[in-house]
Amino acid sequence: MAYNDSNIFAKILRGEAPCVKVYEDDATLSFMDVMPQAEGHTLIIPKVAAEFIFDMTPDDYAALAKTTQKIAAAVKQAIGSPGLMIAQLNGAEAGQTVFHIHNHVIPRWDGIDMKLHARQLADIKVLEEQAARIRAAL
Amino acid sequence: MAYNDSNIFAKILRGEAPCVKVYEDDATLSFMDVMPQAEGHTLIIPKVAAEFIFDMTPDDYAALAKTTQKIAAAVKQAIGSPGLMIAQLNGAEAGQTVFHIHNHVIPRWDGIDMKLHARQLADIKVLEEQAARIRAAL
Repeated sequence: MAYNDSNIFAKILRGEAPCVKVYEDDATLSFMDVMPQAEGHTLIIPKVAAEFIFDMTPDDYAALAKTTQKIAAAVKQAIGSPGLMIAQLNGAEAGQTVFHIHNHVIPRWDGIDMKLHARQLADIKVLEEQAARIRAAL
Repeated sequence: MAYNDSNIFAKILRGEAPCVKVYEDDATLSFMDVMPQAEGHTLIIPKVAAEFIFDMTPDDYAALAKTTQKIAAAVKQAIGSPGLMIAQLNGAEAGQTVFHIHNHVIPRWDGIDMKLHARQLADIKVLEEQAARIRAAL
């Protein structure tokens, strides 16, 4: 399957759709998941057009990883969760719903299950407030 | 919590415990998960002593990511799964059971749920055969 640049993350990268931004550099962009599976659920995407992990150069993938690490530390500090899951779903069979590769950073607490993936829109004001705390922790 | 070098992955790195090896370089080691959540479930660990994503230098973390990408492509080719999940569990509250950071590469198929994490030992002969196919795809 070829990359389809009408996906929502491509639109966000082109400035054609909004996002609650957490961080941006030359290679990557990070923003709040609008259908969070937990409080503080944040996404990191590369700026290169790539559907899957298999479509990226090693250096582009390393840049995605470095931003993910930076965001993970800030999310943990800002949200205060004892656990943190990093996940990347490649292919619809793995649960991928937007076909521009993205890493999920999902805070975890003992005894609190994650919500289902991509089901319910969050209150944008709540996301803006979380993003401000995460940016402050960067 | 300080790194405890009696964990099973530290023992594997020191050659004190066996593993079904898939790949090794200066910075990383990859081997089959002995309690697989799906056929072809493979792990990638850094050689540096680190419990969590927060404990690694950006360059060490990038090396872990590059090996993960390499292994992901080989697992997909060797196992033939349409989907592939990459996961990293930081903290017991996120489901981490071995306190040396590791990335999971888990093949996914539509309609086949993952098994529970770290519950049932696999047949080592089956893992050896899978590892041989993954190594051949590297």
